[in-house]
Amino acid sequence: MNENGREWSVSMNSDREALELAPELQTTRWFNTDQTLTLERLRGRVVVLVAFQMLCPGCVARTIPLAQRLDQTFDRDELAVIGLHTVFEHHEVMTPQALEVFLSEYRVTFPVGCDTPDPNGGTTPVSMSTYGMQGTPTLVMIDSLGNRRAQHFEMHDELVLGAEIGLLLAERRRFMHADD
Amino acid sequence: MNENGREWSVSMNSDREALELAPELQTTRWFNTDQTLTLERLRGRVVVLVAFQMLCPGCVARTIPLAQRLDQTFDRDELAVIGLHTVFEHHEVMTPQALEVFLSEYRVTFPVGCDTPDPNGGTTPVSMSTYGMQGTPTLVMIDSLGNRRAQHFEMHDELVLGAEIGLLLAERRRFMHADD
Amino acid sequence: MNENGREWSVSMNSDREALELAPELQTTRWFNTDQTLTLERLRGRVVVLVAFQMLCPGCVARTIPLAQRLDQTFDRDELAVIGLHTVFEHHEVMTPQALEVFLSEYRVTFPVGCDTPDPNGGTTPVSMSTYGMQGTPTLVMIDSLGNRRAQHFEMHDELVLGAEIGLLLAERRRFMHADD
Amino acid sequence: MNENGREWSVSMNSDREALELAPELQTTRWFNTDQTLTLERLRGRVVVLVAFQMLCPGCVARTIPLAQRLDQTFDRDELAVIGLHTVFEHHEVMTPQALEVFLSEYRVTFPVGCDTPDPNGGTTPVSMSTYGMQGTPTLVMIDSLGNRRAQHFEMHDELVLGAEIGLLLAERRRFMHADD
Repeated sequence: MNENGREWSVSMNSDREALELAPELQTTRWFNTDQTLTLERLRGRVVVLVAFQMLCPGCVARTIPLAQRLDQTFDRDELAVIGLHTVFEHHEVMTPQALEVFLSEYRVTFPVGCDTPDPNGGTTPVSMSTYGMQGTPTLVMIDSLGNRRAQHFEMHDELVLGAEIGLLLAERRRFMHADD
Repeated sequence: MNENGREWSVSMNSDREALELAPELQTTRWFNTDQTLTLERLRGRVVVLVAFQMLCPGCVARTIPLAQRLDQTFDRDELAVIGLHTVFEHHEVMTPQALEVFLSEYRVTFPVGCDTPDPNGGTTPVSMSTYGMQGTPTLVMIDSLGNRRAQHFEMHDELVLGAEIGLLLAERRRFMHADD
Repeated sequence: MNENGREWSVSMNSDREALELAPELQTTRWFNTDQTLTLERLRGRVVVLVAFQMLCPGCVARTIPLAQRLDQTFDRDELAVIGLHTVFEHHEVMTPQALEVFLSEYRVTFPVGCDTPDPNGGTTPVSMSTYGMQGTPTLVMIDSLGNRRAQHFEMHDELVLGAEIGLLLAERRRFMHADD
Repeated sequence: MNENGREWSVSMNSDREALELAPELQTTRWFNTDQTLTLERLRGRVVVLVAFQMLCPGCVARTIPLAQRLDQTFDRDELAVIGLHTVFEHHEVMTPQALEVFLSEYRVTFPVGCDTPDPNGGTTPVSMSTYGMQGTPTLVMIDSLGNRRAQHFEMHDELVLGAEIGLLLAERRRFMHADD
């Protein structure tokens, strides 16, 4: 809630000096892409990072369809929708093999990476820890310069998400023109 | 559809020289405000103009709730949601008196103006004609400088609308800072 | 809730001696039918009586579509869906003339009668009073013998309503065969 | 569609002599119950048999929530909702172990059995074959005498399902009284 008591509160800092690069992704495997995607490779595009688990009911009912619509609505040259399978429970059944079936059955078309398991044997995978995610689903909004601008836990408000994307796309276009 | 075959196509012209001011509203009466609202008075804010009829099923089921959510989501100092009752059929029952009951029953909180009836006795009211609206519902996106940037007939895609608003809010903020 | 703590509780009395005929409808005008419908005329069919107001948001969003689906799902020779416009507020704008436009715009195909205004000048119309309705929407389930078997205020559970109809249709078929 | 062109068409045969017992279930394991459930054990109750796969999107989005609501709406002494995990594809990831996690995450409370794999190495499990199911989801309506009365593939119409249940519950009550 902002000062006016409205729900909209773009947490996107406009203070250039206070921005921080989003941590690089740590992944073991990718689906729906031939590449090992990194945020560095995606630089120049706005990125919506979608952290989920394939047996998380809220992710399946709401987040995956939302991500799919994001991928279909916007121009992939401007906005990249990237899934991240952050398994922090029931690791034995939410395997990459099972994820592959899930992505096929749900006709997911955007790239999805598998978050790297904790090398120390903990339950939370590496990227999920680095980003300080509270659970799934989590959406991370990353601007075209690679800065993490917002991180949403269990949030599906399309007006707010759309507005955040619109802001980041507007910034991106300005940056692009500034290069001219 | 844009070049990449995606649904997103911001029709918002960035060519400053090609922009046109949105025509001023012609209204007879207002609800949920003490003022006779005009676009000139709203200058400095992004405006979403929501043209509807109180007995249009799509307007009632989808557009009014969407407009209500827009009004509750964004800061009214930045974005103004303005209803316009554009009665072009069944004028005898969609009267201002009936509209007043409708707005109360549906708990509409944003300002709503009554489009001025055609002085020549035609069925289409003045603002609706001036804007060239095809019917109801129609959403018009007006930037903080008063330019009509997009006009949508029967459209309720919250990701697209949110992104358009985000773009216009980003521009507005840049204009505001440019004044500093 | 019944003894087992489940939501299903068919209030339909099976005690034949305790049943009461539903009060006859008092109406001034009908739409979507050439007849002045009465429960007596409908005897032999299960009747779902749908009391609503055209500017009641819950009625418009949920009850009218539900009634429309009931009318389209079941055989009209077995089940009659009958609307009753029970105006108890804002009488000046929810007129029969306005109702006619509403029914046309919402493509309502089942018969709808206008409840008779209180001859003593009260706000509640006659049938609504006689049935003791708490407000709108109210659904009344009437068996093929004309008995009022259930009355629901603000209820739209399709599984429960479907089951009640199934029970009444089963009874009706048994009665029909009993005549053989 | 029945003769009158309406969608309702109770396929439930009332010709007592033409009815057939539903084939007995062949299962390897059960969840949410201590028993190995059989239709014979359930005799005396109406049974809704819900065949699904845990990675079938339509089952997850619509059938499981519907089955859950059936279980919560009706009296378990009268109606038994029974899940059947009929894995006919991707057997390697839709294991009983994965199903157990799925049922826990989705908070499924009704009993679910695992259909017995084809002993001849085919992909379709035994009960699914015996019932001649076309795929998942499939709902089978079984009366309190154990007869298969209807079988629905990819169907979620709650008015129709509710009505079928109402009919079977009415029959059941009559049978019970007939025993008196």
